[in-house]
Amino acid sequence: MATRKTKTKTKAKTTARRRTAAKTPVRNAFYAQSGGVTAVINASACGVIETARKHKNKIGKVYAGRNGIIGALTEDLIDTSKESVAAIKALRHTPSGAFGSCRYKLKSLEKNRREYERLIEVFEAHNIGYFFYNGGGDSADTCHKISQLSETMGYPLQAIHVPKTVDNDLPITDNCPGFGSVAKYIAVSTREASFDVASMAKTSTKVFIIEVMGRHAGWIAAAGGLASSEDTPIPIVILFPEVEFDQKAFIKKVDGMVKKHGYCTVVVSEGVHWPNGKFLAESGLTDAFGHAQLGGAAPVVANMVQQELGLKYHWAVADYLQRAARHIASKTDVNMAYAMGKAAVEFALKGHNAIMPTVDRISDKPFKWKVGMADLSKVANVEKMMPKNFITKDGFGITQKCRTYLEPLIRGEDYPPYKNGMPQYVRLKNVAVKKKTKKAFKL
Amino acid sequence: MATRKTKTKTKAKTTARRRTAAKTPVRNAFYAQSGGVTAVINASACGVIETARKHKNKIGKVYAGRNGIIGALTEDLIDTSKESVAAIKALRHTPSGAFGSCRYKLKSLEKNRREYERLIEVFEAHNIGYFFYNGGGDSADTCHKISQLSETMGYPLQAIHVPKTVDNDLPITDNCPGFGSVAKYIAVSTREASFDVASMAKTSTKVFIIEVMGRHAGWIAAAGGLASSEDTPIPIVILFPEVEFDQKAFIKKVDGMVKKHGYCTVVVSEGVHWPNGKFLAESGLTDAFGHAQLGGAAPVVANMVQQELGLKYHWAVADYLQRAARHIASKTDVNMAYAMGKAAVEFALKGHNAIMPTVDRISDKPFKWKVGMADLSKVANVEKMMPKNFITKDGFGITQKCRTYLEPLIRGEDYPPYKNGMPQYVRLKNVAVKKKTKKAFKL
Repeated sequence: MATRKTKTKTKAKTTARRRTAAKTPVRNAFYAQSGGVTAVINASACGVIETARKHKNKIGKVYAGRNGIIGALTEDLIDTSKESVAAIKALRHTPSGAFGSCRYKLKSLEKNRREYERLIEVFEAHNIGYFFYNGGGDSADTCHKISQLSETMGYPLQAIHVPKTVDNDLPITDNCPGFGSVAKYIAVSTREASFDVASMAKTSTKVFIIEVMGRHAGWIAAAGGLASSEDTPIPIVILFPEVEFDQKAFIKKVDGMVKKHGYCTVVVSEGVHWPNGKFLAESGLTDAFGHAQLGGAAPVVANMVQQELGLKYHWAVADYLQRAARHIASKTDVNMAYAMGKAAVEFALKGHNAIMPTVDRISDKPFKWKVGMADLSKVANVEKMMPKNFITKDGFGITQKCRTYLEPLIRGEDYPPYKNGMPQYVRLKNVAVKKKTKKAFKL
Repeated sequence: MATRKTKTKTKAKTTARRRTAAKTPVRNAFYAQSGGVTAVINASACGVIETARKHKNKIGKVYAGRNGIIGALTEDLIDTSKESVAAIKALRHTPSGAFGSCRYKLKSLEKNRREYERLIEVFEAHNIGYFFYNGGGDSADTCHKISQLSETMGYPLQAIHVPKTVDNDLPITDNCPGFGSVAKYIAVSTREASFDVASMAKTSTKVFIIEVMGRHAGWIAAAGGLASSEDTPIPIVILFPEVEFDQKAFIKKVDGMVKKHGYCTVVVSEGVHWPNGKFLAESGLTDAFGHAQLGGAAPVVANMVQQELGLKYHWAVADYLQRAARHIASKTDVNMAYAMGKAAVEFALKGHNAIMPTVDRISDKPFKWKVGMADLSKVANVEKMMPKNFITKDGFGITQKCRTYLEPLIRGEDYPPYKNGMPQYVRLKNVAVKKKTKKAFKL
């Protein structure tokens, strides 16, 4: 299964590198997971590894960075060739980051040349010619910087970014793998909890508040709107980070909904903020010792509802549950996540560098999409917000345009296998690759 | 489908009643949902209605109380015979209370005779001879009082309680329908979120805290312990309402877990309290205006972890999401919920009164159970707490005995049907029965 690695003992580095590249077409790949993990980032890993294993004439081994790019910097590599076919296949239905992720952003080459030199040292030691980086906006930026190493530092490397983020804020691609599954979780959970509060409203809870992720973009909050549909209408008020919070208008909206329907559900994004930019979640809560309480937005909104309208409420904060909920992942999302990983390898084999595979939507009805490609220079540091025409005029709901966009992304169920009532998620062996560089690197 | 109703125009009430009972063996049934709803209470409703429909020679129509017992008091009855076979069948996979529930406890006959007289007035007007009450401890008490009406007020009625409560605190029955599904949701969600935090722990979140329901009994918190199993060990700290909170011991436990495993997950029951009985959730939080903040226990625990250990945390409050999560219901639980509804009708047809069908466990391995029966006098006002030997000595975990009890209850998946990515939950027509009593009743 393993391919012999080429050792390059060099005199003149550049010559040696060229020679290596010329003599051995087989090079190893590096894969890393970056930033917040999702229910389907491992499906992308599965796509990368399974596809690479099919091209052993070009890609030797896939080494994964333990805890993302930190694994590359500290030469803490995981040999994925030690994992069975079944284990790699099981990644497709396992949430979280199987190799560990990290929040670590490389500075620019000018500001921290040391880190790039170290990456090259490690890559060279392990004959790494392919760099697959699975992450969001910051990671796209890092990947873009690394993609320039061939040119700027003379090390032959193809860097491809694999899109991932529950926030759905990467440009060019129709959506980001990870988002569809969170959207499904939030839509389903909001529908279920709304049924609950509707049952209780006569004598008890009348307002249910669910807080969802999305500090800057309201994509996930928008998905809460899918809980209501033509055949199952539900009174829902959405608080988007894109819309400055207007307490008076919000209270009026909730009051009207409860008066008309007997109850209502509020979907509040963690990123909702006052006109002065301050998050609702930081509304000056202090505990008994006077310490600032890092609360959620949901309890703050709940308090308002109680104080202004005197209505009984319940609130939930989904937090990690939403992005880890592989048990209710969107099949469309899982398929896209896998396809992005697969495409990344195929693009690499075709010689591409500094790109990111994308989801290109062909049509809404029927929903059709294909794999596309974006230049990383156009992806890095661009944040895709909700278009204005996706939010209703009053700022509290989603438009039909938004529904048309969102609906296909939550379609299909893709249940993991269960044993004794529990989902069977894989834990890899994560065998370390023997270190080859002389000295340790301090982060 | 409908059976002709007998009209009883009476002179001397008691005689008329006897005559009615003698002349017409066919009487109608009243069914109501009470207290907090669950993912499977409608499965019990389905069991009641489907079984009653099979015995039209004895049970005419099933009238449901709109919003529980309030529907009986205000003569707001729903004619379930107007619902199609498919709609009733769909109740089995629909969470929440399809007829509306309520939090309303009848006082004793001595203290509020007026309510009981009103119930008899309504029941008599609609020829109701069977009373099925679907709820928890308080409802069992109400049902028990109503079961005495035959004797105390001369109205022939059979009252049967159908067990339901996510809190799992009813006595005699092995478990309460509703609990198994919450347990599964919490076990699955805790496992998923733990995988997430394990991926992030190197550079980011090291402690994840999930708050679960259970104000007095720690059954749901205990289910969090199932997230960890022999093949998938996870460092979990559980905070039970049965164990007085010891901040020092808790912080030491978390510290040890994080030092050993790199991360840990805390499952905290909403009912966790200080030795003086004060809930953690009421730890004196105030908002910017000095108003008491009705926060959750999770943010309080999170603050402790941050202040005492300086560890990065995330927290979630599952709230209604856990008890409404029909999408991940336990098949065992759904089957039991249905069986309890079915058995209630069958027991009634055999002439029983003042009883509750129960789940009787025959064996753990293999898991076998049968329908049993409990006297309501022994159910009402008894709360089943976690046995001491279900909690580990240090107070932060579950024992093997507890696992053996819990594991069978979360077994099996019972997915609802989906359309365009969303679960298809039924909403009944809930057609009102024409009122027959003269005057309105004020609650």
